[in-house]
Amino acid sequence: MLKLYSYFRSSASYRVRIALALKGLPYDYEPIHLLKDGGQQLKPDYRAVNADGVVPALMVDQQPLIQSLAIIEYLDETHPQPPLLPGNPLERAIVRGLAQEIACEIHPLNNLRVLKYLKHQLGVADEAKDAWYRHWIEQGFASLEVNLERIGRVGTFAYGDAPTLIDLCLVPQVFNAQRFKVDMSRYPVISRINDACLALDAFRDAAPGAQPDSE
Amino acid sequence: MLKLYSYFRSSASYRVRIALALKGLPYDYEPIHLLKDGGQQLKPDYRAVNADGVVPALMVDQQPLIQSLAIIEYLDETHPQPPLLPGNPLERAIVRGLAQEIACEIHPLNNLRVLKYLKHQLGVADEAKDAWYRHWIEQGFASLEVNLERIGRVGTFAYGDAPTLIDLCLVPQVFNAQRFKVDMSRYPVISRINDACLALDAFRDAAPGAQPDSE
Repeated sequence: MLKLYSYFRSSASYRVRIALALKGLPYDYEPIHLLKDGGQQLKPDYRAVNADGVVPALMVDQQPLIQSLAIIEYLDETHPQPPLLPGNPLERAIVRGLAQEIACEIHPLNNLRVLKYLKHQLGVADEAKDAWYRHWIEQGFASLEVNLERIGRVGTFAYGDAPTLIDLCLVPQVFNAQRFKVDMSRYPVISRINDACLALDAFRDAAPGAQPDSE
Repeated sequence: MLKLYSYFRSSASYRVRIALALKGLPYDYEPIHLLKDGGQQLKPDYRAVNADGVVPALMVDQQPLIQSLAIIEYLDETHPQPPLLPGNPLERAIVRGLAQEIACEIHPLNNLRVLKYLKHQLGVADEAKDAWYRHWIEQGFASLEVNLERIGRVGTFAYGDAPTLIDLCLVPQVFNAQRFKVDMSRYPVISRINDACLALDAFRDAAPGAQPDSE
């Protein structure tokens, strides 16, 4: 049985939950509360799973897998239906590239530990911290809109008419954007894709509000 | 012919250069100066390649590929020798996870545009900015050391006795660490891997100092 270490509001965990749901894979849900007790992800119990102290991690046969994109590719390789990446190398590179535009250029800057550093080490006020949060989303979404249009494969979803790795990264990032009051009307393509995804049970079941540790 | 949009000191470009060198693939080198003219990566010419305005990008048959990890996986799929990922899904996930620990948790926080934001938008002084830079490397390297040891596959390189995706991310990150005077003696495993890599022509030929736009 797979075991997912997850926090309901973690968007990297959210990505993996969508993949598990799309694949129809059952799993044990192990909540790791990122705020309680100074952060359960920083305690020895969880550091023994991932020394880096970030969620998610997926336990597979006693082997912890870390990093959401690596986990999702593992799930896709071991449970190919429905596929989350196209069949040929060039298209796979395009899909991975757009997914990483979110996962490597937007999301890391808005991680909890980064926000903590801004506040505690650099003395950044809450208002400027929220502006920082929105800035990386707005800059990233603006260029993602252009890249999506240019590649010209937007269909019902970000790349064609079935969800791919891009959608798995996009939906949790939009969730964060909405939470921080980003004006999503500026990103009509992303918004339309997000709506299409959330019409699917797998995306809704994976959402923060549907998790056992939701608050 | 492949064309690589690169900046000599960009560590994401450096990763892709190592992959190209290991595979023995010739390519045209298109320098994008990140500082000159306010940043050539932000000009319309390059935005037409990658709207996100970051390097590297690899032009393949008129199709720009973006994001270093996606590009490297493309090269590995289309030119399988020598392989940069193990043959089975679980091991591939482990290697991708450790590579992403660098590419998604350390590197994005030290990108030029982030450092610019800290300085210009948040008024962070140079000393505190350098401390930020070192902080993410030190935190990331400390946990990477633990994760590498725990997985127990460190050989001559990070995962066995041939270079993998992990090494391609590790060496450029160590280059950055040294530039910012991180005390690398605290990371003996990473240091040993770095030395082993730099004994190979492919890694040396891909280094910032060996590029046509090197300063």
